[in-house]
Amino acid sequence: MKKWSLLIDTKDEKGLIHKITGVLFYQNLNVVQTNEFVDNDNNRFYMRCELEGDVNREAILQKLNELIPEAKLSLCAAKKKDVVIMVTKESHAIGDILIKHEFGDINANIKAVIGNHNNLQNLVEKFDIPYIHVSHEGKEREVHEQEIRKIIDSYAPDYIVLAKYMRILTPNFVKGFENKIINIHHSFLPAFIGANPYKQAHQRGVKIIGATAHFVNNDLDEGPIIYQNVVPVDHSMTWQDMMNLGRDVEKTVLSNALKLVFEDKVFIYQNKTVIL
Amino acid sequence: MKKWSLLIDTKDEKGLIHKITGVLFYQNLNVVQTNEFVDNDNNRFYMRCELEGDVNREAILQKLNELIPEAKLSLCAAKKKDVVIMVTKESHAIGDILIKHEFGDINANIKAVIGNHNNLQNLVEKFDIPYIHVSHEGKEREVHEQEIRKIIDSYAPDYIVLAKYMRILTPNFVKGFENKIINIHHSFLPAFIGANPYKQAHQRGVKIIGATAHFVNNDLDEGPIIYQNVVPVDHSMTWQDMMNLGRDVEKTVLSNALKLVFEDKVFIYQNKTVIL
Amino acid sequence: MKKWSLLIDTKDEKGLIHKITGVLFYQNLNVVQTNEFVDNDNNRFYMRCELEGDVNREAILQKLNELIPEAKLSLCAAKKKDVVIMVTKESHAIGDILIKHEFGDINANIKAVIGNHNNLQNLVEKFDIPYIHVSHEGKEREVHEQEIRKIIDSYAPDYIVLAKYMRILTPNFVKGFENKIINIHHSFLPAFIGANPYKQAHQRGVKIIGATAHFVNNDLDEGPIIYQNVVPVDHSMTWQDMMNLGRDVEKTVLSNALKLVFEDKVFIYQNKTVIL
Amino acid sequence: MKKWSLLIDTKDEKGLIHKITGVLFYQNLNVVQTNEFVDNDNNRFYMRCELEGDVNREAILQKLNELIPEAKLSLCAAKKKDVVIMVTKESHAIGDILIKHEFGDINANIKAVIGNHNNLQNLVEKFDIPYIHVSHEGKEREVHEQEIRKIIDSYAPDYIVLAKYMRILTPNFVKGFENKIINIHHSFLPAFIGANPYKQAHQRGVKIIGATAHFVNNDLDEGPIIYQNVVPVDHSMTWQDMMNLGRDVEKTVLSNALKLVFEDKVFIYQNKTVIL
Repeated sequence: MKKWSLLIDTKDEKGLIHKITGVLFYQNLNVVQTNEFVDNDNNRFYMRCELEGDVNREAILQKLNELIPEAKLSLCAAKKKDVVIMVTKESHAIGDILIKHEFGDINANIKAVIGNHNNLQNLVEKFDIPYIHVSHEGKEREVHEQEIRKIIDSYAPDYIVLAKYMRILTPNFVKGFENKIINIHHSFLPAFIGANPYKQAHQRGVKIIGATAHFVNNDLDEGPIIYQNVVPVDHSMTWQDMMNLGRDVEKTVLSNALKLVFEDKVFIYQNKTVIL
Repeated sequence: MKKWSLLIDTKDEKGLIHKITGVLFYQNLNVVQTNEFVDNDNNRFYMRCELEGDVNREAILQKLNELIPEAKLSLCAAKKKDVVIMVTKESHAIGDILIKHEFGDINANIKAVIGNHNNLQNLVEKFDIPYIHVSHEGKEREVHEQEIRKIIDSYAPDYIVLAKYMRILTPNFVKGFENKIINIHHSFLPAFIGANPYKQAHQRGVKIIGATAHFVNNDLDEGPIIYQNVVPVDHSMTWQDMMNLGRDVEKTVLSNALKLVFEDKVFIYQNKTVIL
Repeated sequence: MKKWSLLIDTKDEKGLIHKITGVLFYQNLNVVQTNEFVDNDNNRFYMRCELEGDVNREAILQKLNELIPEAKLSLCAAKKKDVVIMVTKESHAIGDILIKHEFGDINANIKAVIGNHNNLQNLVEKFDIPYIHVSHEGKEREVHEQEIRKIIDSYAPDYIVLAKYMRILTPNFVKGFENKIINIHHSFLPAFIGANPYKQAHQRGVKIIGATAHFVNNDLDEGPIIYQNVVPVDHSMTWQDMMNLGRDVEKTVLSNALKLVFEDKVFIYQNKTVIL
Repeated sequence: MKKWSLLIDTKDEKGLIHKITGVLFYQNLNVVQTNEFVDNDNNRFYMRCELEGDVNREAILQKLNELIPEAKLSLCAAKKKDVVIMVTKESHAIGDILIKHEFGDINANIKAVIGNHNNLQNLVEKFDIPYIHVSHEGKEREVHEQEIRKIIDSYAPDYIVLAKYMRILTPNFVKGFENKIINIHHSFLPAFIGANPYKQAHQRGVKIIGATAHFVNNDLDEGPIIYQNVVPVDHSMTWQDMMNLGRDVEKTVLSNALKLVFEDKVFIYQNKTVIL
């Protein structure tokens, strides 16, 4: 049976759930799960419903719009998201996604992989996915990004996944894909922002390291956090040991974040996420 | 402002949320948070609402009862739960509860502590809480339990907390307090049921140990699980090392479980919990 | 520079470290790290040294043998282990190993993958690794195992990795590869031994699930544990949700265990591991 | 039987373990466990031996000193450390220590508790431990610290534990107790240095929070890290919820760190710890 996600993000007011569920009830919809969250600090209301069966999308959106005109509404049939992935040289995050994609374990169609190096081309092509090598060498940053942007636009993806893409993106590039770029950062943000976090972590002598998946909305390390996880380390490890250990955390954190986003469970408000 | 918890546990049907929130809306209540869960496997519906302000309890319950006659309903003003604690010899779990109780960090009034030994009497009395020593020595199990039961009944507690009470309770005793006895089990259930789980864990050579807080509804290790947590161990540890390490896990797991139960967030269905 | 691992497993006695390090010192070896563990309960001594540079293997072993005649000694140059992998239908564990193998991130040469189904053949062959389909259908267990055994023997592997091989192995098969078979079990052993642990875990209502990598020395779920990890779950998850979540844990746990074993860091004593 | 810890911290060189264990062997000592770590990056060697029985302390130190003149050596009989604790207003960390102290579960004698407020006086005195209230109000920082320092000096403690002491210490105060002050910081350092880390964490929308126990050698948040742990959080929690949840982590992290330090297992080198 067809599945749908209804997402509502609006100013909180009395009786909202009653109003909204009234629309669903009188349309005779099968509601599988409902979740809400009220952010009492900011007076915001978030609701997610999973529906099943035939849905008259236009009618429902119109009714809801009449009732709560200022709400951000989204009602989509569950579908695989179209995704373009960007990489640099490291194989663990893209490798994990490719395996999951191959066996239908990720709710996405990978349309293409774009890399600023070419060492991952062979891997990606094994899975019959186009790999486009866009070298940054000898190019100004804006020129390089324009080339990438053109390729991305040709695929019109729902999301862009930075699977260890190691170059800073300009604000201009990022602005073009608001709430659509997901990055895996190789540290437990906000600790160790910037270059080589494993080396920084090693020098600081921390006893736990982690990884952070987040949306990229302005600079590379600062967007809304979707998912984080950690792993213990100790004095006997070099920073390379930490990096190797961290890679399994990175790929799992990214994978969990993608699952949440691709199943339409993530709301973004200011610089935070609400996950229902 | 006064706070209330409304808990509803019933057979799932279409439009339930709309019906229920209608009652709340037309009574003009302040709904702070709402959470629901539909167990589609068993066709059960669970809902928890936090309300604020003046509430006409009788009126609301009556309306809800008319709409969903077979529902289990609970609508209580938030209040500290009356609790009797049972202990044997170990100090960590009772100690943690006493400190939290002293500073108002646990949503409970400890009415009394009952112990089958007396080495914790001095500690408990420091906090001006009655300690009743009911030795089991030379008594048949039923006789011992009857003595304890009499003391418990005199306090009419909302819950009984087994804070490392190390004797098996008879089914008869347990039946008298259905869904009211909370136990901390010193293992990651269902592994290592039974005596000295740390020794069992050490002999098996596990790399992680844990603790489990659960309701006691029949035998000591088998009721609905409320909360669990774990901690890594390694070959260099003796079983006593594991036990010492495990004690911090035990007390924290128990404390988290008590928080959930005392804030009216836990539903019990068959042998499982739903936590909203 | 060439790297070596010296492993010593013997009865504990006074002065052992002094004797052993004397041999290393007078041979003028570069000792990079040394680790020991004394199991005082069982009076056993375990030592692991990492050496660097030219090593006269025969001379060292002879000297050590003279000093501690009853010790189990192993002195090997660090090398990639030859490995045969066995699978059934699930792609996550084998997929993770293949990606790591392709990029040199696992200390092993995968000689072949043997599967009792053929749906993973295509994946394995993408990486130019032989896939041998040995169907169990219509065959007695012993006949099926003899076929597999013949193939394994033709590769003379150092280790056999059961990457979600879902058939029970006979004691006879297992006996042929003592301390050489590594399995990933999809539960937090010793909880939920046996079939479909995720379903068992769901029914029991646990709040944490896990995975266990272990040697297989008698029956499938009972050998020395190498590595374990866990992940929290809750009432809202179906057992299939738990299984999907658990798969990332399984593959990471297996990967960590393989790293330890392939770097010669794991001692086995009775039914436990010592990891140095 | 009497137990001893031998700690050696020196420049690495060939044959060190052989030399050192030679001294131990020819003195006919019972060595229960030995652990070493070589920091190959900095060419440092760390060794910890647990000895049992009669030990001629002077003779051993002299021999070792002859062999490795530049080594930092420490050979102490295991004993309870004398400790002064400093607090402000929060009860969880001091409460946990008091309970453990009362039942012999912490390897320390608490000589006194010093607080800049008096709300914890009643609790501390229940356990027959002196509480000294040194208000900071209306005093210059240096004057306040001199009063505290005088009290501390009168107890000549081995360690000073900041169990949620919420005032910044001056470099001058800290310098007087090098490697002797242990602090629990209510965040996962180096994230959220500074005031109200839980509020900072909430505003940043992190999905995990943590706590860090560390030595204080210069400013309050920057010394060598001894132990860290974390706990998951989500969007539904206020910063006060996070703080309440975090307190159990804080006290457990502090407790683990104290255990390591009081059992003479922690080496400090530059701004990091080696734990053997």
